Amino acid sequence: MGEYAEIRYEVSGPIATVTLHRPERLNAFTTTMAHELVDAFDRADADDDVRVVVVTGEGRGFCAGADLGGGADTFDAGDGADRRSAHGEIDGVPRDGGGTVSLRIAACRKPVIGAINGPAVGVGVTMTLPMDIRIAAEEARFGFVFARRGIVPEAASTWFLPRIVGISQAMEWVATGRVFDAAEAREGGLVSRVVPGDRLLESATELASEIADNTSAVSVAVARQLLWGMLGSATPWDAHRADSRAMYGLGAGADAAEGVAAFLEKRAAQFPGRPSADIPEGLPRWPLPPDDATGSGTWHQA
Amino acid sequence: MGEYAEIRYEVSGPIATVTLHRPERLNAFTTTMAHELVDAFDRADADDDVRVVVVTGEGRGFCAGADLGGGADTFDAGDGADRRSAHGEIDGVPRDGGGTVSLRIAACRKPVIGAINGPAVGVGVTMTLPMDIRIAAEEARFGFVFARRGIVPEAASTWFLPRIVGISQAMEWVATGRVFDAAEAREGGLVSRVVPGDRLLESATELASEIADNTSAVSVAVARQLLWGMLGSATPWDAHRADSRAMYGLGAGADAAEGVAAFLEKRAAQFPGRPSADIPEGLPRWPLPPDDATGSGTWHQA
Amino acid sequence: MGEYAEIRYEVSGPIATVTLHRPERLNAFTTTMAHELVDAFDRADADDDVRVVVVTGEGRGFCAGADLGGGADTFDAGDGADRRSAHGEIDGVPRDGGGTVSLRIAACRKPVIGAINGPAVGVGVTMTLPMDIRIAAEEARFGFVFARRGIVPEAASTWFLPRIVGISQAMEWVATGRVFDAAEAREGGLVSRVVPGDRLLESATELASEIADNTSAVSVAVARQLLWGMLGSATPWDAHRADSRAMYGLGAGADAAEGVAAFLEKRAAQFPGRPSADIPEGLPRWPLPPDDATGSGTWHQA
Repeated sequence: MGEYAEIRYEVSGPIATVTLHRPERLNAFTTTMAHELVDAFDRADADDDVRVVVVTGEGRGFCAGADLGGGADTFDAGDGADRRSAHGEIDGVPRDGGGTVSLRIAACRKPVIGAINGPAVGVGVTMTLPMDIRIAAEEARFGFVFARRGIVPEAASTWFLPRIVGISQAMEWVATGRVFDAAEAREGGLVSRVVPGDRLLESATELASEIADNTSAVSVAVARQLLWGMLGSATPWDAHRADSRAMYGLGAGADAAEGVAAFLEKRAAQFPGRPSADIPEGLPRWPLPPDDATGSGTWHQA
Repeated sequence: MGEYAEIRYEVSGPIATVTLHRPERLNAFTTTMAHELVDAFDRADADDDVRVVVVTGEGRGFCAGADLGGGADTFDAGDGADRRSAHGEIDGVPRDGGGTVSLRIAACRKPVIGAINGPAVGVGVTMTLPMDIRIAAEEARFGFVFARRGIVPEAASTWFLPRIVGISQAMEWVATGRVFDAAEAREGGLVSRVVPGDRLLESATELASEIADNTSAVSVAVARQLLWGMLGSATPWDAHRADSRAMYGLGAGADAAEGVAAFLEKRAAQFPGRPSADIPEGLPRWPLPPDDATGSGTWHQA
Repeated sequence: MGEYAEIRYEVSGPIATVTLHRPERLNAFTTTMAHELVDAFDRADADDDVRVVVVTGEGRGFCAGADLGGGADTFDAGDGADRRSAHGEIDGVPRDGGGTVSLRIAACRKPVIGAINGPAVGVGVTMTLPMDIRIAAEEARFGFVFARRGIVPEAASTWFLPRIVGISQAMEWVATGRVFDAAEAREGGLVSRVVPGDRLLESATELASEIADNTSAVSVAVARQLLWGMLGSATPWDAHRADSRAMYGLGAGADAAEGVAAFLEKRAAQFPGRPSADIPEGLPRWPLPPDDATGSGTWHQA
């Protein structure tokens, strides 16, 4: 996939910025956009120079949700053939398109920052849940509006949302379908900070640079897959197993030697490790497409 | 079960209000009350006109906990025969009565709002944990007092409480057994808002109406079982599977057509769907009695 | 193990205080310290007179992390022989030493309060995560600095941290490796209160006394293993099973009789139960060494 039609992908220094780009439709979500987002995360993951991914929206909106231009039968997949051909199938039904994006973001090796510049509604907000950090412009609005449209929260959000904001806040937002402002999002734990709109990308860049300037890319990649992965583990022994392996593998590596030496010499570290080559074998990670359709239970890859 | 002895059950418009009703005992919990609560939730679930359940207490208290009128051997089940006959058994021991109530509330298809008007202590607070939203009067008091009575948190609260308030807050309240006020409950995440006592039911009604006036009953029922159910899933792939199925089933339904049409026509939606008939097959849900005694691992019902 | 070289262990009334004691190195972590900490928790668990364990640091620091005195190859385990002999192995690799401490604290029968008096960095902060409550001096500093050293969060922290502070806050602290102050720790939910340094131990003692003065040691021990254990259970039915068993066992016991009688007589309770002897059979608990190396999935001990 070369240039994109409905998103933009730009790399500047260590930061890849993915911009949802249908400003005339408040960046409403389409099948094309879903495919392009999955492709963009593949690119970011494959590029060792990319340390952090920032996702934002062009114009007034972040993402207004599914494009309802198809009218009342927007969510009607008929016999499912079109949606099957768009996103494949799972357990005999067409895969939800938002879910293919969420699961791809969840499996990313780089931290992902959502810079939510305006309305983020429906899949526009659920797609941000597997991102690591969400910051919002004062103008942002949010809505888990599914129950107001006769459908349900998708994009695997029923798994992600309670883990981010707690089950009570999740149920209140989902059961009411209410559209709420950035202050309520901050109070409820959905976003970690709210800034004036003209400072949003600057704030995201500062946070991304704090990561890129100070840390080992390999360390961050492994830590990301462990932290998200252990959300699904019954006991800390899984974590002990995995981090014993990771510490043994990485402890003998060039990044650890440089990290300790730089600290002792009171200088900035220059980490040579590359996520594409230097992640130890045998650590759990979430599956990538096409294995993500049947990923449950298999993320403990040996 | 016709009229109840220790609770009241009233339906007004889309709201069923369940009132704990032993005001002379601060609504202390009994076997009769447990049975009546389970029955009341069966009624609310079976009645498509009921969109939201509100639970509150009559008089000064919400629920003062187990009735200790039996004296020092209140919690002594002897050979277990009486308690077995009261609540059945699980793994060879009598089932905890509070647990039968909690698990029935957890399996409810309607959102449940706890309107906590006064002291909620012991089972009086643990029974509220599977409710979706808790709001409190300024006069409310809370206490996980079990360790001060020589027993342990029951009603499956050791599963629910850390998921609502976090493990550290849960341990502090349980290990001290402290009785605390509404402000501490709000600060710690146990209740989402605190209002003057004379505005408590009005606040609960506003919230219930926000749900009932704007959303599809079927959507809310499915979303509730997905959100609570996915708390127990190891990975988001379970959610992806379930929401793909739900979106495929509901997307072709009358509620989705009405929801999108109403949105595009900028009018209030009138959803025709009924939870009793229109929930798609094959979605996970928590088991109802009598299967709830052995429910673990079987909630993925095909 | 008699006297300790790198920690102090003192019992005063119902409180055991464990003090990390290498003040000239800001109490940096070593293999010796790991072994002594595991031993100290064994002692606290075996002593029925100990009701609460408080962990703090001597001098200016709490724990500055792994001792980097070994230079750039500090984390290089070579062929693993030394670290295997230090901490055993798991899945064919040497066990992470911090993990042996964290898992021992997690399995403790007594509540554990971290009284963090100064910098708690690397393993210095991850070892506090299985403690129940963390309170901090205003002078405390925190850092999940692993990615700045080319390694990863250890001591099973990828399991504990998101359960305490949420996945978004966990990812931000881990991905940046930032050192942050006590106010940020409080805001992010890592510590529950911040006090002036000269009041830190007094605050910890007040909290410990609130537990010791008012509660049954057996109740608290069982509640602790249920609350932590149920973090890893898929559904509340596991909790219902376990608390039905616990209520049946303890309800007939001397502590329950005393707890209810004292309440009815409006006097302080004097609980006779002892954790070493009076915990009912058949409850889940986390394994102790040496079984903790292979503990996953086996904590449901019959």
